[in-house]
Amino acid sequence: MKNLIIYSGGMDSTTLLYEYKDNIALAVNFNYGSKHNEREYEYAKYNCEKLNIPLLKINLDFMKYFKSHLLKDGGDIPEGYYTEENMKKTVVPFRNGIMLSVAVGLAESNGLKKVLIANHFGDHAIYPDCRSDFIKHFKKAAFYGTWENIEISAPYTNLTKREVALKGKKLGVDFSKTYSCYKGEKLHCGRCGTCVERLEALDGLKDDTKYKDTEYWKKVINRKT
Amino acid sequence: MKNLIIYSGGMDSTTLLYEYKDNIALAVNFNYGSKHNEREYEYAKYNCEKLNIPLLKINLDFMKYFKSHLLKDGGDIPEGYYTEENMKKTVVPFRNGIMLSVAVGLAESNGLKKVLIANHFGDHAIYPDCRSDFIKHFKKAAFYGTWENIEISAPYTNLTKREVALKGKKLGVDFSKTYSCYKGEKLHCGRCGTCVERLEALDGLKDDTKYKDTEYWKKVINRKT
Repeated sequence: MKNLIIYSGGMDSTTLLYEYKDNIALAVNFNYGSKHNEREYEYAKYNCEKLNIPLLKINLDFMKYFKSHLLKDGGDIPEGYYTEENMKKTVVPFRNGIMLSVAVGLAESNGLKKVLIANHFGDHAIYPDCRSDFIKHFKKAAFYGTWENIEISAPYTNLTKREVALKGKKLGVDFSKTYSCYKGEKLHCGRCGTCVERLEALDGLKDDTKYKDTEYWKKVINRKT
Repeated sequence: MKNLIIYSGGMDSTTLLYEYKDNIALAVNFNYGSKHNEREYEYAKYNCEKLNIPLLKINLDFMKYFKSHLLKDGGDIPEGYYTEENMKKTVVPFRNGIMLSVAVGLAESNGLKKVLIANHFGDHAIYPDCRSDFIKHFKKAAFYGTWENIEISAPYTNLTKREVALKGKKLGVDFSKTYSCYKGEKLHCGRCGTCVERLEALDGLKDDTKYKDTEYWKKVINRKT
Protein backbone atom coordinates (compact mmCIF):
# COMPACT_ATOMS: atom_id res chain seq x y z
CA MET A 1 0.00 0.00 0.00
CA LYS A 2 2.76 2.40 -0.83
CA ASN A 3 1.47 3.99 -4.05
CA LEU A 4 -0.13 7.31 -4.87
CA ILE A 5 -2.08 7.54 -8.15
CA ILE A 6 -2.82 10.61 -10.23
CA TYR A 7 -6.47 9.93 -10.94
CA SER A 8 -8.63 12.02 -13.28
CA GLY A 9 -11.68 9.76 -13.57
CA GLY A 10 -11.07 9.13 -17.29
CA MET A 11 -10.72 5.75 -19.02
CA ASP A 12 -6.97 5.34 -18.67
CA SER A 13 -6.46 6.32 -15.05
CA THR A 14 -9.59 4.36 -14.04
CA THR A 15 -8.08 1.27 -15.66
CA LEU A 16 -4.83 1.95 -13.80
CA LEU A 17 -6.77 2.42 -10.56
CA TYR A 18 -8.40 -0.98 -10.98
CA GLU A 19 -5.17 -2.67 -12.00
CA TYR A 20 -3.26 -1.46 -8.92
CA LYS A 21 -6.16 -1.10 -6.50
CA ASP A 22 -4.64 -3.36 -3.85
CA ASN A 23 -1.49 -1.26 -3.66
CA ILE A 24 -2.90 2.26 -3.75
CA ALA A 25 -2.92 4.28 -0.53
CA LEU A 26 -4.06 7.59 -2.03
CA ALA A 27 -5.68 8.81 -5.25
CA VAL A 28 -5.15 12.46 -6.18
CA ASN A 29 -7.52 14.29 -8.51
CA PHE A 30 -6.37 17.61 -9.97
CA ASN A 31 -8.77 20.39 -10.89
CA TYR A 32 -6.83 22.70 -13.18
CA GLY A 33 -9.82 24.65 -14.40
CA SER A 34 -10.64 22.64 -17.53
CA LYS A 35 -14.10 22.49 -19.00
CA HIS A 36 -14.37 18.83 -18.01
CA ASN A 37 -12.61 18.55 -14.63
CA GLU A 38 -15.82 18.64 -12.59
CA ARG A 39 -17.45 15.87 -14.64
CA GLU A 40 -14.32 13.77 -14.34
CA TYR A 41 -14.30 14.29 -10.58
CA GLU A 42 -17.81 12.82 -10.22
CA TYR A 43 -16.54 9.54 -11.66
CA ALA A 44 -13.26 9.69 -9.78
CA LYS A 45 -15.33 9.91 -6.62
CA TYR A 46 -17.62 7.06 -7.74
CA ASN A 47 -14.78 4.64 -8.49
CA CYS A 48 -12.73 5.50 -5.40
CA GLU A 49 -15.76 4.98 -3.17
CA LYS A 50 -16.43 1.67 -4.89
CA LEU A 51 -12.84 0.50 -4.32
CA ASN A 52 -12.57 2.13 -0.90
CA ILE A 53 -9.54 4.23 -1.88
CA PRO A 54 -9.10 7.68 -0.29
CA LEU A 55 -9.40 10.48 -2.86
CA LEU A 56 -7.81 13.91 -2.42
CA LYS A 57 -8.93 16.76 -4.69
CA ILE A 58 -6.29 19.39 -5.42
CA ASN A 59 -7.22 22.72 -7.00
CA LEU A 60 -4.53 24.30 -9.17
CA ASP A 61 -5.95 27.82 -9.18
CA PHE A 62 -2.83 29.29 -10.80
CA MET A 63 -3.80 27.59 -14.05
CA LYS A 64 -5.95 30.67 -14.70
CA TYR A 65 -2.69 32.20 -15.96
CA PHE A 66 -2.21 29.38 -18.51
CA LYS A 67 -3.40 29.39 -22.11
CA SER A 68 -5.27 26.40 -23.55
CA HIS A 69 -8.60 25.74 -25.23
CA LEU A 70 -9.09 22.97 -22.68
CA LEU A 71 -9.51 25.55 -19.90
CA LYS A 72 -12.84 27.15 -19.06
CA ASP A 73 -11.66 30.57 -20.22
CA GLY A 74 -10.02 29.17 -23.37
CA GLY A 75 -11.52 28.99 -26.86
CA ASP A 76 -13.77 26.28 -28.31
CA ILE A 77 -12.74 22.64 -28.19
CA PRO A 78 -11.70 21.48 -31.68
CA GLU A 79 -13.46 18.50 -33.28
CA GLY A 80 -11.77 15.77 -35.33
CA TYR A 81 -9.21 13.02 -35.15
CA TYR A 82 -7.05 13.30 -32.07
CA THR A 83 -3.71 13.44 -33.83
CA GLU A 84 -4.67 16.38 -36.06
CA GLU A 85 -2.67 19.59 -35.84
CA ASN A 86 -5.52 21.69 -34.46
CA MET A 87 -5.78 19.39 -31.43
CA LYS A 88 -2.67 21.11 -30.10
CA LYS A 89 -4.99 23.86 -28.91
CA THR A 90 -6.01 21.53 -26.10
CA VAL A 91 -2.50 21.19 -24.70
CA VAL A 92 -2.18 22.63 -21.18
CA PRO A 93 1.53 23.47 -21.06
CA PHE A 94 3.51 21.03 -18.90
CA ARG A 95 0.38 19.76 -17.15
CA ASN A 96 1.86 16.34 -16.46
CA GLY A 97 5.05 17.93 -15.16
CA ILE A 98 2.97 19.97 -12.72
CA MET A 99 0.72 17.11 -11.60
CA LEU A 100 3.67 14.76 -11.20
CA SER A 101 5.66 17.31 -9.19
CA VAL A 102 2.82 17.94 -6.77
CA ALA A 103 2.21 14.19 -6.54
CA VAL A 104 5.89 13.51 -5.79
CA GLY A 105 5.86 16.09 -2.98
CA LEU A 106 2.61 14.69 -1.60
CA ALA A 107 3.98 11.15 -1.75
CA GLU A 108 7.09 12.10 0.18
CA SER A 109 5.04 14.09 2.72
CA ASN A 110 2.85 11.04 3.31
CA GLY A 111 5.48 8.31 3.45
CA LEU A 112 4.51 6.85 0.06
CA LYS A 113 7.20 5.61 -2.30
CA LYS A 114 5.72 5.55 -5.78
CA VAL A 115 3.56 7.74 -8.02
CA LEU A 116 1.42 6.10 -10.72
CA ILE A 117 0.34 7.97 -13.86
CA ALA A 118 -1.74 6.67 -16.78
CA ASN A 119 -0.32 8.48 -19.81
CA HIS A 120 -0.57 6.22 -22.88
CA PHE A 121 0.76 6.00 -26.42
CA GLY A 122 -2.23 7.75 -28.03
CA ASP A 123 -1.33 10.94 -26.15
CA HIS A 124 2.11 11.14 -27.73
CA ALA A 125 1.22 12.93 -30.95
CA ILE A 126 -0.16 16.03 -29.26
CA TYR A 127 1.08 16.06 -25.66
CA PRO A 128 4.89 16.25 -25.26
CA ASP A 129 4.62 15.64 -21.51
CA CYS A 130 3.06 12.22 -22.12
CA ARG A 131 5.96 10.88 -24.20
CA SER A 132 8.53 8.40 -23.02
CA ASP A 133 11.39 10.93 -23.28
CA PHE A 134 9.66 13.23 -20.83
CA ILE A 135 8.74 10.39 -18.47
CA LYS A 136 12.27 8.97 -18.55
CA HIS A 137 13.91 12.22 -17.48
CA PHE A 138 11.21 13.23 -15.02
CA LYS A 139 11.63 9.86 -13.30
CA LYS A 140 15.27 10.64 -12.68
CA ALA A 141 14.50 14.19 -11.53
CA ALA A 142 12.04 12.77 -8.95
CA PHE A 143 14.52 10.13 -7.85
CA TYR A 144 17.38 12.60 -7.32
CA GLY A 145 15.17 15.43 -6.08
CA THR A 146 13.74 13.64 -3.02
CA TRP A 147 15.26 12.17 0.13
CA GLU A 148 13.23 9.00 -0.31
CA ASN A 149 14.02 8.63 -4.02
CA ILE A 150 10.38 8.69 -5.01
CA GLU A 151 9.64 6.47 -8.00
CA ILE A 152 7.42 7.31 -10.97
CA SER A 153 5.58 4.47 -12.69
CA ALA A 154 3.89 5.09 -16.04
CA PRO A 155 3.07 1.54 -17.17
CA TYR A 156 0.80 2.53 -20.08
CA THR A 157 3.33 4.83 -21.81
CA ASN A 158 3.63 2.45 -24.76
CA LEU A 159 0.08 1.04 -24.79
CA THR A 160 -2.47 2.26 -27.31
CA LYS A 161 -5.87 3.45 -26.10
CA ARG A 162 -7.33 0.25 -27.54
CA GLU A 163 -4.93 -1.82 -25.44
CA VAL A 164 -5.88 0.18 -22.35
CA ALA A 165 -9.57 -0.38 -23.15
CA LEU A 166 -9.06 -4.14 -23.48
CA LYS A 167 -7.11 -4.21 -20.23
CA GLY A 168 -9.88 -2.26 -18.50
CA LYS A 169 -12.51 -4.67 -19.77
CA LYS A 170 -10.56 -7.62 -18.38
CA LEU A 171 -10.35 -5.86 -15.03
CA GLY A 172 -14.11 -5.31 -14.98
CA VAL A 173 -14.07 -1.53 -15.46
CA ASP A 174 -17.48 -0.08 -16.39
CA PHE A 175 -16.41 2.64 -18.82
CA SER A 176 -19.80 4.34 -18.58
CA LYS A 177 -18.55 5.31 -15.11
CA THR A 178 -15.63 7.25 -16.57
CA TYR A 179 -15.61 10.64 -18.29
CA SER A 180 -13.49 11.82 -21.24
CA CYS A 181 -15.18 14.59 -23.23
CA TYR A 182 -13.19 17.84 -23.37
CA LYS A 183 -16.38 19.87 -23.75
CA GLY A 184 -17.50 18.94 -20.25
CA GLU A 185 -21.21 18.67 -21.01
CA LYS A 186 -23.40 16.04 -19.40
CA LEU A 187 -23.31 13.78 -22.48
CA HIS A 188 -20.06 12.98 -24.24
CA CYS A 189 -20.09 14.96 -27.52
CA GLY A 190 -18.64 12.15 -29.64
CA ARG A 191 -16.80 14.70 -31.81
CA CYS A 192 -13.87 16.16 -29.85
CA GLY A 193 -10.44 14.51 -30.09
CA THR A 194 -10.79 12.55 -26.89
CA CYS A 195 -14.35 11.37 -27.68
CA VAL A 196 -13.18 10.16 -31.10
CA GLU A 197 -10.26 8.33 -29.50
CA ARG A 198 -12.55 6.83 -26.86
CA LEU A 199 -15.15 5.60 -29.39
CA GLU A 200 -12.45 4.12 -31.61
CA ALA A 201 -10.87 2.33 -28.61
CA LEU A 202 -14.19 0.94 -27.38
CA ASP A 203 -15.46 -0.11 -30.84
CA GLY A 204 -17.12 -3.51 -30.56
CA LEU A 205 -16.79 -3.61 -26.76
CA LYS A 206 -19.74 -3.19 -24.40
CA ASP A 207 -20.06 0.52 -23.58
CA ASP A 208 -23.13 2.02 -21.93
CA THR A 209 -21.84 5.61 -22.19
CA LYS A 210 -24.29 8.02 -23.82
CA TYR A 211 -22.86 10.05 -26.70
CA LYS A 212 -24.50 12.93 -28.58
CA ASP A 213 -23.00 11.73 -31.86
CA THR A 214 -22.01 8.08 -32.35
CA GLU A 215 -21.23 8.25 -36.09
CA TYR A 216 -18.83 11.17 -36.50
CA TRP A 217 -15.75 9.25 -35.29
CA LYS A 218 -16.06 6.70 -38.09
CA LYS A 219 -15.80 9.47 -40.67
CA VAL A 220 -12.70 11.08 -39.20
CA ILE A 221 -10.60 8.01 -38.54
CA ASN A 222 -9.68 8.16 -42.20
CA ARG A 223 -7.97 11.48 -41.50
CA LYS A 224 -5.40 9.74 -39.28
CA THR A 225 -1.99 11.38 -39.43
CA MET B 1 13.45 39.64 -22.89
CA LYS B 2 12.55 36.01 -23.09
CA ASN B 3 13.24 34.83 -19.53
CA LEU B 4 11.00 34.04 -16.58
CA ILE B 5 12.62 34.03 -13.13
CA ILE B 6 11.51 32.17 -10.02
CA TYR B 7 11.95 34.98 -7.52
CA SER B 8 11.54 34.58 -3.77
CA GLY B 9 12.97 37.89 -2.56
CA GLY B 10 15.91 36.16 -0.83
CA MET B 11 19.62 36.88 -1.34
CA ASP B 12 20.25 34.39 -4.13
CA SER B 13 17.29 35.05 -6.38
CA THR B 14 17.66 38.81 -5.87
CA THR B 15 21.27 38.54 -7.08
CA LEU B 16 20.04 36.52 -10.07
CA LEU B 17 17.34 39.13 -10.74
CA TYR B 18 19.95 41.88 -10.84
CA GLU B 19 22.35 39.85 -12.96
CA TYR B 20 19.74 39.08 -15.65
CA LYS B 21 17.51 42.14 -15.22
CA ASP B 22 17.76 43.23 -18.84
CA ASN B 23 16.51 39.87 -20.10
CA ILE B 24 13.69 39.14 -17.66
CA ALA B 25 10.12 39.49 -18.88
CA LEU B 26 8.39 38.08 -15.79
CA ALA B 27 9.29 37.33 -12.17
CA VAL B 28 7.19 34.71 -10.38
CA ASN B 29 6.95 34.60 -6.59
CA PHE B 30 5.51 31.46 -4.98
CA ASN B 31 3.65 31.50 -1.68
CA TYR B 32 3.64 27.91 -0.48
CA GLY B 33 2.50 28.67 3.03
CA SER B 34 5.90 28.98 4.72
CA LYS B 35 6.45 31.07 7.82
CA HIS B 36 8.54 33.51 5.80
CA ASN B 37 6.86 33.75 2.39
CA GLU B 38 5.03 36.98 3.15
CA ARG B 39 8.18 38.75 4.36
CA GLU B 40 10.04 37.54 1.28
CA TYR B 41 7.26 38.86 -0.94
CA GLU B 42 7.62 42.40 0.43
CA TYR B 43 11.21 42.48 -0.79
CA ALA B 44 10.39 40.72 -4.05
CA LYS B 45 7.91 43.51 -4.69
CA TYR B 46 10.43 46.19 -3.69
CA ASN B 47 13.15 44.94 -6.03
CA CYS B 48 10.84 44.25 -8.97
CA GLU B 49 9.37 47.75 -8.70
CA LYS B 50 12.88 49.20 -8.54
CA LEU B 51 13.93 47.31 -11.69
CA ASN B 52 10.56 47.72 -13.42
CA ILE B 53 10.04 43.96 -13.83
CA PRO B 54 6.47 42.56 -13.69
CA LEU B 55 5.95 40.31 -10.65
CA LEU B 56 3.32 37.56 -10.51
CA LYS B 57 2.44 36.04 -7.13
CA ILE B 58 1.30 32.41 -7.23
CA ASN B 59 -0.36 30.79 -4.23
CA LEU B 60 0.22 27.06 -3.87
CA ASP B 61 -2.66 26.36 -1.49
CA PHE B 62 -2.26 22.58 -1.80
CA MET B 63 0.95 22.80 0.21
CA LYS B 64 -1.27 22.60 3.30
CA TYR B 65 -1.15 18.85 2.68
CA PHE B 66 2.66 18.83 2.83
CA LYS B 67 4.76 18.22 5.91
CA SER B 68 7.68 20.51 6.78
CA HIS B 69 8.77 22.66 9.71
CA LEU B 70 9.16 25.48 7.22
CA LEU B 71 5.39 25.68 6.78
CA LYS B 72 3.13 27.76 9.02
CA ASP B 73 1.47 24.66 10.45
CA GLY B 74 4.76 22.80 10.86
CA GLY B 75 6.92 22.54 14.00
CA ASP B 76 9.54 25.01 15.24
CA ILE B 77 12.39 26.11 12.97
CA PRO B 78 15.65 24.42 14.08
CA GLU B 79 18.67 26.58 14.98
CA GLY B 80 22.28 25.79 14.10
CA TYR B 81 24.63 25.31 11.18
CA TYR B 82 22.76 24.84 7.92
CA THR B 83 24.27 21.49 6.99
CA GLU B 84 23.33 19.81 10.30
CA GLU B 85 21.06 16.79 10.22
CA ASN B 86 18.15 18.48 12.02
CA MET B 87 17.93 21.10 9.26
CA LYS B 88 16.24 18.44 7.14
CA LYS B 89 13.06 19.32 9.01
CA THR B 90 12.89 22.44 6.86
CA VAL B 91 12.77 20.53 3.58
CA VAL B 92 9.49 21.05 1.71
CA PRO B 93 9.32 17.88 -0.39
CA PHE B 94 10.09 18.53 -4.07
CA ARG B 95 9.47 22.26 -3.74
CA ASN B 96 11.85 23.15 -6.55
CA GLY B 97 10.27 20.47 -8.76
CA ILE B 98 6.87 22.05 -8.17
CA MET B 99 7.98 25.66 -8.64
CA LEU B 100 9.96 24.77 -11.77
CA SER B 101 7.03 22.83 -13.28
CA VAL B 102 4.60 25.69 -12.76
CA ALA B 103 7.21 28.12 -14.10
CA VAL B 104 7.78 25.99 -17.21
CA GLY B 105 4.02 25.90 -17.92
CA LEU B 106 3.73 29.65 -17.34
CA ALA B 107 6.71 30.31 -19.59
CA GLU B 108 5.20 28.28 -22.44
CA SER B 109 1.80 29.92 -21.94
CA ASN B 110 3.40 33.36 -22.19
CA GLY B 111 5.76 32.78 -25.11
CA LEU B 112 8.89 32.82 -22.92
CA LYS B 113 11.73 30.43 -23.62
CA LYS B 114 13.78 30.13 -20.45
CA VAL B 115 13.22 29.71 -16.71
CA LEU B 116 15.87 31.02 -14.30
CA ILE B 117 16.29 29.58 -10.81
CA ALA B 118 18.84 30.58 -8.12
CA ASN B 119 19.60 27.31 -6.31
CA HIS B 120 23.22 27.34 -5.11
CA PHE B 121 25.84 24.97 -3.76
CA GLY B 122 25.12 25.67 -0.08
CA ASP B 123 21.63 24.17 -0.53
CA HIS B 124 22.99 20.82 -1.62
CA ALA B 125 23.56 19.23 1.79
CA ILE B 126 19.92 19.44 2.86
CA TYR B 127 17.80 20.00 -0.24
CA PRO B 128 17.97 17.21 -2.84
CA ASP B 129 15.99 19.28 -5.35
CA CYS B 130 18.74 21.92 -5.41
CA ARG B 131 21.51 19.53 -6.46
CA SER B 132 23.03 19.31 -9.92
CA ASP B 133 21.69 15.78 -10.51
CA PHE B 134 18.12 16.98 -10.01
CA ILE B 135 18.64 20.08 -12.14
CA LYS B 136 20.29 18.09 -14.95
CA HIS B 137 17.38 15.66 -15.31
CA PHE B 138 14.64 18.24 -14.75
CA LYS B 139 16.17 20.33 -17.55
CA LYS B 140 15.73 17.44 -19.93
CA ALA B 141 12.18 16.73 -18.71
CA ALA B 142 11.25 20.38 -19.39
CA PHE B 143 12.92 20.28 -22.81
CA TYR B 144 11.13 17.11 -23.93
CA GLY B 145 7.87 17.88 -22.12
CA THR B 146 7.06 21.14 -23.95
CA TRP B 147 6.40 22.04 -27.57
CA GLU B 148 8.76 25.01 -27.34
CA ASN B 149 11.54 23.03 -25.60
CA ILE B 150 11.60 25.34 -22.60
CA GLU B 151 15.07 25.75 -21.14
CA ILE B 152 15.98 25.78 -17.44
CA SER B 153 18.97 27.85 -16.37
CA ALA B 154 20.39 27.42 -12.86
CA PRO B 155 23.67 29.35 -13.10
CA TYR B 156 24.44 29.33 -9.34
CA THR B 157 24.18 25.55 -8.88
CA ASN B 158 27.90 25.27 -8.15
CA LEU B 159 28.46 28.65 -6.47
CA THR B 160 28.76 28.91 -2.69
CA LYS B 161 26.57 31.40 -0.83
CA ARG B 162 29.70 33.51 -0.32
CA GLU B 163 30.29 33.61 -4.06
CA VAL B 164 26.67 34.62 -4.62
CA ALA B 165 27.07 37.36 -1.98
CA LEU B 166 30.20 38.72 -3.66
CA LYS B 167 28.48 38.65 -7.04
CA GLY B 168 25.47 40.48 -5.58
CA LYS B 169 27.73 43.16 -4.09
CA LYS B 170 29.36 43.74 -7.47
CA LEU B 171 25.92 44.10 -9.04
CA GLY B 172 24.93 46.70 -6.44
CA VAL B 173 22.37 44.57 -4.58
CA ASP B 174 21.38 46.01 -1.19
CA PHE B 175 21.00 42.82 0.84
CA SER B 176 19.07 44.64 3.57
CA LYS B 177 16.32 44.68 0.93
CA THR B 178 16.21 40.88 0.82
CA TYR B 179 14.76 38.44 3.36
CA SER B 180 16.03 35.01 4.39
CA CYS B 181 14.96 34.06 7.94
CA TYR B 182 12.87 30.87 8.12
CA LYS B 183 11.11 32.11 11.26
CA GLY B 184 9.42 34.88 9.31
CA GLU B 185 9.55 37.51 12.04
CA LYS B 186 10.20 41.16 11.29
CA LEU B 187 13.89 40.94 12.27
CA HIS B 188 16.11 38.12 11.01
CA CYS B 189 16.69 35.79 13.98
CA GLY B 190 20.38 35.18 13.25
CA ARG B 191 20.11 31.61 14.56
CA CYS B 192 18.18 29.48 12.03
CA GLY B 193 20.10 27.62 9.32
CA THR B 194 19.48 30.21 6.65
CA CYS B 195 20.35 33.18 8.93
CA VAL B 196 23.61 31.47 9.89
CA GLU B 197 24.41 30.86 6.24
CA ARG B 198 23.53 34.45 5.36
CA LEU B 199 25.69 35.96 8.12
CA GLU B 200 28.61 33.73 7.20
CA ALA B 201 28.30 34.69 3.52
CA LEU B 202 28.08 38.42 4.25
CA ASP B 203 30.88 38.46 6.85
CA GLY B 204 33.05 41.53 6.31
CA LEU B 205 30.75 42.94 3.60
CA LYS B 206 28.49 45.94 4.12
CA ASP B 207 25.11 44.66 5.34
CA ASP B 208 22.46 46.92 6.88
CA THR B 209 20.13 44.04 7.73
CA LYS B 210 18.96 44.00 11.37
CA TYR B 211 19.47 40.67 13.16
CA LYS B 212 18.26 39.69 16.63
CA ASP B 213 21.48 37.78 17.28
CA THR B 214 24.68 38.67 15.45
CA GLU B 215 27.04 36.42 17.44
CA TYR B 216 25.46 32.96 17.38
CA TRP B 217 26.61 32.10 13.84
CA LYS B 218 30.26 32.45 14.79
CA LYS B 219 29.85 29.77 17.45
CA VAL B 220 28.15 27.23 15.20
CA ILE B 221 30.38 27.46 12.12
CA ASN B 222 32.75 25.18 14.01
CA ARG B 223 30.06 22.50 13.85
CA LYS B 224 30.30 22.35 10.05
CA THR B 225 29.67 18.88 8.67
